[in-house]
Amino acid sequence: MLTTNPFDDDKLHEECGIFGIAGSDSAAAVTALGLHALQHRGQEAAGIVSFDGEEFHARRAMGHVAGNFDSEDVIDTLGGSNAVGHVRYSTTGASALRNVQPLFADLSSGGFAIAHNGNISNAGTLRKALVRRGSIFQSTSDTEVIIHLLATSSYRSLLDRFIDALKQVEGAYSLICLTSEGMIACRDPLGVRPLVMGKLGEAWLFASETVAFDVVGAEFVRAVDPGELVIVQKGEVRSIRPFEQQHQRPCIFEHVYFSRPDSIVDGTSVYSVRKAIGEQLALESPVDADYVIPVPDSGTPAAIGFAQTSGIPFELGIIRSHYVGRTFISPGDQVRHLGVKLKHNANRALVEGRRIVLIDDSIVRGTTSLKIVQMMRDAGAAEVHMRIASPPTRHSCFYGVDTPERSKLLAAKHDIQEMNTFIQADSLAFVSIDGLYRAVGEGQRNMAQPQYCDACFTGDYPTPLTDQDEFGLENQFSLLAERVN
Amino acid sequence: MLTTNPFDDDKLHEECGIFGIAGSDSAAAVTALGLHALQHRGQEAAGIVSFDGEEFHARRAMGHVAGNFDSEDVIDTLGGSNAVGHVRYSTTGASALRNVQPLFADLSSGGFAIAHNGNISNAGTLRKALVRRGSIFQSTSDTEVIIHLLATSSYRSLLDRFIDALKQVEGAYSLICLTSEGMIACRDPLGVRPLVMGKLGEAWLFASETVAFDVVGAEFVRAVDPGELVIVQKGEVRSIRPFEQQHQRPCIFEHVYFSRPDSIVDGTSVYSVRKAIGEQLALESPVDADYVIPVPDSGTPAAIGFAQTSGIPFELGIIRSHYVGRTFISPGDQVRHLGVKLKHNANRALVEGRRIVLIDDSIVRGTTSLKIVQMMRDAGAAEVHMRIASPPTRHSCFYGVDTPERSKLLAAKHDIQEMNTFIQADSLAFVSIDGLYRAVGEGQRNMAQPQYCDACFTGDYPTPLTDQDEFGLENQFSLLAERVN
Amino acid sequence: MLTTNPFDDDKLHEECGIFGIAGSDSAAAVTALGLHALQHRGQEAAGIVSFDGEEFHARRAMGHVAGNFDSEDVIDTLGGSNAVGHVRYSTTGASALRNVQPLFADLSSGGFAIAHNGNISNAGTLRKALVRRGSIFQSTSDTEVIIHLLATSSYRSLLDRFIDALKQVEGAYSLICLTSEGMIACRDPLGVRPLVMGKLGEAWLFASETVAFDVVGAEFVRAVDPGELVIVQKGEVRSIRPFEQQHQRPCIFEHVYFSRPDSIVDGTSVYSVRKAIGEQLALESPVDADYVIPVPDSGTPAAIGFAQTSGIPFELGIIRSHYVGRTFISPGDQVRHLGVKLKHNANRALVEGRRIVLIDDSIVRGTTSLKIVQMMRDAGAAEVHMRIASPPTRHSCFYGVDTPERSKLLAAKHDIQEMNTFIQADSLAFVSIDGLYRAVGEGQRNMAQPQYCDACFTGDYPTPLTDQDEFGLENQFSLLAERVN
Amino acid sequence: MLTTNPFDDDKLHEECGIFGIAGSDSAAAVTALGLHALQHRGQEAAGIVSFDGEEFHARRAMGHVAGNFDSEDVIDTLGGSNAVGHVRYSTTGASALRNVQPLFADLSSGGFAIAHNGNISNAGTLRKALVRRGSIFQSTSDTEVIIHLLATSSYRSLLDRFIDALKQVEGAYSLICLTSEGMIACRDPLGVRPLVMGKLGEAWLFASETVAFDVVGAEFVRAVDPGELVIVQKGEVRSIRPFEQQHQRPCIFEHVYFSRPDSIVDGTSVYSVRKAIGEQLALESPVDADYVIPVPDSGTPAAIGFAQTSGIPFELGIIRSHYVGRTFISPGDQVRHLGVKLKHNANRALVEGRRIVLIDDSIVRGTTSLKIVQMMRDAGAAEVHMRIASPPTRHSCFYGVDTPERSKLLAAKHDIQEMNTFIQADSLAFVSIDGLYRAVGEGQRNMAQPQYCDACFTGDYPTPLTDQDEFGLENQFSLLAERVN
Repeated sequence: MLTTNPFDDDKLHEECGIFGIAGSDSAAAVTALGLHALQHRGQEAAGIVSFDGEEFHARRAMGHVAGNFDSEDVIDTLGGSNAVGHVRYSTTGASALRNVQPLFADLSSGGFAIAHNGNISNAGTLRKALVRRGSIFQSTSDTEVIIHLLATSSYRSLLDRFIDALKQVEGAYSLICLTSEGMIACRDPLGVRPLVMGKLGEAWLFASETVAFDVVGAEFVRAVDPGELVIVQKGEVRSIRPFEQQHQRPCIFEHVYFSRPDSIVDGTSVYSVRKAIGEQLALESPVDADYVIPVPDSGTPAAIGFAQTSGIPFELGIIRSHYVGRTFISPGDQVRHLGVKLKHNANRALVEGRRIVLIDDSIVRGTTSLKIVQMMRDAGAAEVHMRIASPPTRHSCFYGVDTPERSKLLAAKHDIQEMNTFIQADSLAFVSIDGLYRAVGEGQRNMAQPQYCDACFTGDYPTPLTDQDEFGLENQFSLLAERVN
Repeated sequence: MLTTNPFDDDKLHEECGIFGIAGSDSAAAVTALGLHALQHRGQEAAGIVSFDGEEFHARRAMGHVAGNFDSEDVIDTLGGSNAVGHVRYSTTGASALRNVQPLFADLSSGGFAIAHNGNISNAGTLRKALVRRGSIFQSTSDTEVIIHLLATSSYRSLLDRFIDALKQVEGAYSLICLTSEGMIACRDPLGVRPLVMGKLGEAWLFASETVAFDVVGAEFVRAVDPGELVIVQKGEVRSIRPFEQQHQRPCIFEHVYFSRPDSIVDGTSVYSVRKAIGEQLALESPVDADYVIPVPDSGTPAAIGFAQTSGIPFELGIIRSHYVGRTFISPGDQVRHLGVKLKHNANRALVEGRRIVLIDDSIVRGTTSLKIVQMMRDAGAAEVHMRIASPPTRHSCFYGVDTPERSKLLAAKHDIQEMNTFIQADSLAFVSIDGLYRAVGEGQRNMAQPQYCDACFTGDYPTPLTDQDEFGLENQFSLLAERVN
Repeated sequence: MLTTNPFDDDKLHEECGIFGIAGSDSAAAVTALGLHALQHRGQEAAGIVSFDGEEFHARRAMGHVAGNFDSEDVIDTLGGSNAVGHVRYSTTGASALRNVQPLFADLSSGGFAIAHNGNISNAGTLRKALVRRGSIFQSTSDTEVIIHLLATSSYRSLLDRFIDALKQVEGAYSLICLTSEGMIACRDPLGVRPLVMGKLGEAWLFASETVAFDVVGAEFVRAVDPGELVIVQKGEVRSIRPFEQQHQRPCIFEHVYFSRPDSIVDGTSVYSVRKAIGEQLALESPVDADYVIPVPDSGTPAAIGFAQTSGIPFELGIIRSHYVGRTFISPGDQVRHLGVKLKHNANRALVEGRRIVLIDDSIVRGTTSLKIVQMMRDAGAAEVHMRIASPPTRHSCFYGVDTPERSKLLAAKHDIQEMNTFIQADSLAFVSIDGLYRAVGEGQRNMAQPQYCDACFTGDYPTPLTDQDEFGLENQFSLLAERVN
Repeated sequence: MLTTNPFDDDKLHEECGIFGIAGSDSAAAVTALGLHALQHRGQEAAGIVSFDGEEFHARRAMGHVAGNFDSEDVIDTLGGSNAVGHVRYSTTGASALRNVQPLFADLSSGGFAIAHNGNISNAGTLRKALVRRGSIFQSTSDTEVIIHLLATSSYRSLLDRFIDALKQVEGAYSLICLTSEGMIACRDPLGVRPLVMGKLGEAWLFASETVAFDVVGAEFVRAVDPGELVIVQKGEVRSIRPFEQQHQRPCIFEHVYFSRPDSIVDGTSVYSVRKAIGEQLALESPVDADYVIPVPDSGTPAAIGFAQTSGIPFELGIIRSHYVGRTFISPGDQVRHLGVKLKHNANRALVEGRRIVLIDDSIVRGTTSLKIVQMMRDAGAAEVHMRIASPPTRHSCFYGVDTPERSKLLAAKHDIQEMNTFIQADSLAFVSIDGLYRAVGEGQRNMAQPQYCDACFTGDYPTPLTDQDEFGLENQFSLLAERVN
């Protein structure tokens, strides 16, 4: 399979985006638009659950929001003024539809829908115990653990049962829940995954990123705080903080790659952070060259920053197909040897005979970098220097980011010199971890109490990894795996 | 909507057919063929779950077995030597796929699949209690109650938990269950719904009707007894009878209409019973006529019996389209007034000027009978006499048969004279209840302890109707209804 | 592939059914219903073309009328008060949609749609000449030859051009054509294929069989005569007979098998002819037996006739699945050895230990007969006698009937004794050719000038077989075959 | 309908892309990849015809190349070492598949497939005459005229017939034809539409743009000359020039917008031309501002040129959704008032309080420009200046480019001042016609004999517009329109 999908390759990527709205005449329509703006956070499935005061309505589909949630017919089936939605990165197999969120359960207190961004790192352990007590799981999703903990909690009120459930889970979660009483949005005590709130007329909105507000012209109010539960009921918003206070550790990779450049994440413009990383790179690892060339599209802001700081002209030396985003299955083995270039093409007339600096956001396996360097050389580039707008990615993420197993990470086994040999560039440099912290506005990384979760670079995980310790990574997955396919 | 579907009209019909096989290299393929032979018991959805010694594999689909379970690709996904399958009459709405059986649950003891023919008449009451204790239901099916009772039972072994569950349910059930240990087939203590066992080489088979054995050339061994659990484990079969002995009450309507004429139900040929009913009818309600004409196809055996006993020639006066079984949506209101005859057509050259006796199996609403009488008159019949091969259907069934609400049953509100007026025949007669019992080989109905469940004719229900008493029919359904659509 | 399709086996079958209506507000809806009633004449594709006074509208689809032409949405796209329709037996390959009729062409005189039942036996020769002169064919259909002859005719008026075209073609054709001026229905000078006309209110109808009138309650007026063109224009009907008078030779097999039993073909009830053939058989080839058993469904009328004449009881010894008409692909080779019986099942309880006479309409390859005899023996029949309601089928048809090549016809190479050995019956007999003529109401076959086309029995073809002589059967087809697939 | 499709809005766009390959083991696979690289030239349908030495194979589909021509199954049906392919912009209606190219005809000389980029401006006139002589058209495509002219030509050899046909047509055409003898590529005498030839191993390739060679690593050899026919037969290439020599007039808009920036069109890098247009704009219409911001993506090269010449920093002030290319149907009227921004979002953190220069390639209706200016103002921009990298588009194109009718072109009725008022910018300027000619490397436009076709800017059409004069635009289309829909 050749692919033109910009995300289906050598990148880490976010596993989910979530959206919720309470109190709008167009709840499902606005949710569909919000999810479309969050599509980069999860492209393989989407779902919406709404509540109309009497009944819940649900629709889930494999594929993009466009094509599944963009017709009036569909939106009309999702009646009511409250709705939650979810986009999901990866589900496999025919029966995977039941893993598509929002999950829904019919509890004794009534219907309950939940949309989750993050990952519960003790889900396997909790599931095992719940099944032993008679709970029957519908999905293989870690999120369902929260629902069963809630259903079997000994507390009385739904809110107490929900908090009881959250106190038992470890890991990262931004959640938006829809009940017959209202909406609950919350973020884990460390605030690993983002969650913002906004306003559109009288309605309250929640989303993973501010771009989901921009698309409908809603006002961005503030980020939901780590450890905060925001409850919307009958148009009123209140906030409770049931957890012990902790130092927050939001994910720094949201700035490097996950979030859209036009989003504001925890108070900072993603575009300006990325440009600042490019400036740091130009200062830390300068190079004598004719052109600064971005690896499209995610390398572009850092390339602009690098070009402005270095004074080397910014040029488009790689042209990306407009038709990315669609998988293109290779038509036969016969053409594999041709080195087919579906996604990127060199702007040969520009780069021929020139010394170039390529700017990319990260290196995961290194295979794409190797191909791009090669493509530049084939087009006649005299020198190819690679500059990376993040530190080397050395560790797996257990908080809702799809990472290859550690052994596949180029930086896990190799130093920068060896990595350069692998990708066959003339030189290779990464921004330093302190350079990255400077770009997000901190003086440097606080080693004792880091301001961000940067475990993928440092291996410094902010929570216990219970399932990982108990079962190992492989076992965790097989534990959760559907026994029925 | 006009329809050519022979079942989608004025008939009671069975809601399910079930099939299971343990110990065959072709388990899923044989199950698909068996389900195809049982298609008349449920035409709207089908499913198969198999177990390959390590993993369960499941596939469910809306629609017929043909088209969904007849490709090698599909069968190949259903690996293993044990499999259970199910055909289902009626599910509504887009999300109904999760109601399609066999249901599957991942219990602490491992995977558990269940296929059910019948209806649990206290399902609503049990579900309410289970949800209150924290169980989360995946479907709106009454069958799921059995799984949750099993999952939360305080007994230790799976078999004890299963029996514990069964002892709490009321109503009619023939079940085939697949576990990682083997297969369990059982029939409720009254034996309301049929269940037979067979053998194909080394493999053991279970099915609703013997025709499912004929299709693959399997040997019919015997009926599963009312109240019996047959357990197949590692090629060995054993039988346990955990319930207090009761007088059995198999459904007599299986002989009248539900089962295929080539099936052997509880030891008797369905074809010969239907012919015998026709003979009883000819003796009880003779008529002077030129031709005996069956209402195709279910009235044919009784018509042959009637013709042979009366000496009146059997002729095909109504031709049924070969293309029944497919729904034909009426192309526009404009043709509605034309009295479109998609399913049946009069053999005008035959019936013109003749006195005819029509033989049908039953009258439910009476609307079809009215149309057929009218069609015969339009074709020039001189006299049209109607003879029905069952007693008047006066009561709803709560044991897995789709019946209109009582008020829609023509016989619930009208005597035979009034019914004749409604259908506009020259005369109308039904076989007597004792005539029906004589046709199935009993001298007459034992009023104290009836040999069959004949509640639809007599109102004499063999079990309590807990949900019905508690919620009323409407409430029972809304209780079970998905709150999320 | 196993199949439950009642036609996809050992039968000759008709290749087309046609329908037309002029002057109805519901033209397309009535056409859809008429085609549904003619579905047995062609089950693989269907099409309708309508004219609304300004524009022609067309829709063609692979598959049945039901499912393709039964929604209001579809019918609404086929506006206008005149419409023609077509059902087609066999088209192969993905691009075959362009062979689906009615064919349409945009001529200098305006739009022209044509629906054809029959076969042009010099189509290959004509096509070759037309292509040489610059005509470009859209399809591989023999029918398209008529359109190009018409388009390039040197005559002036459309009607003259049409007659000019017809005078050049040989073979069998019943045609219904739609132009912007009106409708033309015509039948070849021998009247090989049937065509009838009817009336529904003010509208005029044409169809292959009268059942297409019954379905909408239209009145059957008369058959179109061999060699007659019926022209409907502005509500007026007129008739012209441009061909030299010939002795008519309608296809006798329409009575044996093709037409529905409830149709009136050339003035005679098909049902009564089939019963009469059974009576002839009972007189010509009596047998001592317990039961007369029809091979369902086409053998039933002859079986009733045989039973009434012989005094042997008529019984259902073979039960046909209700779910015929759908193809059931065999789920894997693994079950092939099981002798799967999807379509027919023996009524074992009836036939066990009995001597039976099976009545079927014809034997083509003999493979089905062999299986059915075997099925009866497996069910315990003591003796199995086969009686066939047509003479042996010894020759191919070139007039629009799908026949296997001659070498596949059992009767082409074997006498009756050998055929009996092949099908393994206790005895085998066919109705005589004179018996068949008696059943259709003739004293006997007029050897000098046969009253019917009976070439499949006698090899006496009523027209030259130009392509057959020129190219041979194989070459004819490769000539027409699409060079592009 | 809201849309994220980058082409389905306020742009002119190319109607077709063509590709051919002769002499490759992977002909169809390479064609699919080449068409994918040309997808921007036609996104609504695609087709491939191949020839395997004996048979032609064809496949056409509505939609993108990806999804229709990217599976081995599909490619395997397109056997042979020669293939031609086509992508098409616009076809409407259900029956439009027959308009999808390559068109194919079965001529007396054998199969003939043709792929066409351009438009025959006397097609209606020629078609009328051909139909009068008996030709029957399969499509409403202007291209089919060429085939019928060829089929009915009085010349003997296929090549002579083809040249005879071309000499009768007017307008623009780049053609690739596949016959059983080989491949013919040709370009009209003016060379309006581009066509290039390349080599991949022993195989010869033809394509609309060089990017189609890059995707498979083929070598770009040269452009096909205006008026040249290149014939590939048995691996040999020869060239003939049957037309009288004319001054060439290639389309200048290929440089402005249609072609990909990484293509070489008629010897010049499209990227460098676009940058040079930006430089001309900066010189001709400078402005005092903080940032130069491209309207993504087509405005980017000109924006880089403008920024480098003006010294104003290049920044991403508008973020385009990655999910462009998919249509997003608006979920309901209810959200229309929200001013939904699916395709573009302002980078508010950047532009707030700043003076910006927006660079776009062209203005057609002006509606998109108005929205983008408004979006920048909503995001807080202090000043918004618009600079356009082409002269005002004042005239329709009749040579294969989809243009709105003239009355919809903003520049057709308004001067630049009025246009600025319409789009509500602080200033608006277009590059001059001479600036554009300088950017493509000419000193200035040769008024007597222009070096390019620039009719959309100047109204100076290089060929007669016969249909336009004869029927008017509307009539031309209704003449070609299918009379059957």
